[in-house]
Amino acid sequence: MNNIARAEAFIRHWEDRDPAAIAAAVAEDVFYHNIPMPPMTGREAVREFAAPFLENADRVQWDVHYIAETTNGAVLTERTDHFHMKTGKTISVRVMGVFEFNAAGEIQKWRDYFDLAEFQSQMS
Amino acid sequence: MNNIARAEAFIRHWEDRDPAAIAAAVAEDVFYHNIPMPPMTGREAVREFAAPFLENADRVQWDVHYIAETTNGAVLTERTDHFHMKTGKTISVRVMGVFEFNAAGEIQKWRDYFDLAEFQSQMS
Repeated sequence: MNNIARAEAFIRHWEDRDPAAIAAAVAEDVFYHNIPMPPMTGREAVREFAAPFLENADRVQWDVHYIAETTNGAVLTERTDHFHMKTGKTISVRVMGVFEFNAAGEIQKWRDYFDLAEFQSQMS
Repeated sequence: MNNIARAEAFIRHWEDRDPAAIAAAVAEDVFYHNIPMPPMTGREAVREFAAPFLENADRVQWDVHYIAETTNGAVLTERTDHFHMKTGKTISVRVMGVFEFNAAGEIQKWRDYFDLAEFQSQMS
């Protein structure tokens, strides 16, 4: 499996609202940085971040507009991430993100770039 | 010249603080969207946006962390854009952006993703 396929599989784990699969796809010491927010480190931190959010969602859809792999194996994406919440609210975030992989094919680093105010105004 | 080379040349035009070269590299009807801001359309709008900003800068440096081209020719970048202003202030924006090219090799669409508050807090 190439790294684009790995990134696509990871996105499907979010759409499947499967925190265990999300956690399994990242490295034990993954570095995950939503750029306008404090970064987090470690598989367990990612699981704890994803699980409550996904539990409150009915449906998750990440539209991938573009995906490309650099010559050294990083995967760059342009996406719109939709979260249809159980409250009836939909959160849609316009985002670009980078995934870096380790030798085992796990996500070692993940950085997502978006406007925090756009996200927060929909969360409130 | 492939599209990665075109995107790199475009970035150098910003570093050279050359609004004419920037304008020449984009399509007449370019669509330029700094995602958290209103989009603009047209070569002249891009020139009018870039020129006063670059006139007030002593030095511009865009660090490209990653660059990759999709199978259909779009170029995705992860960058930190530094603007050293004549006031002595430095503005550094963490950004990811997409460039789409037309058949003439001009930039037809450009979308940059960043946190608006991060940019504005440094501008003020």
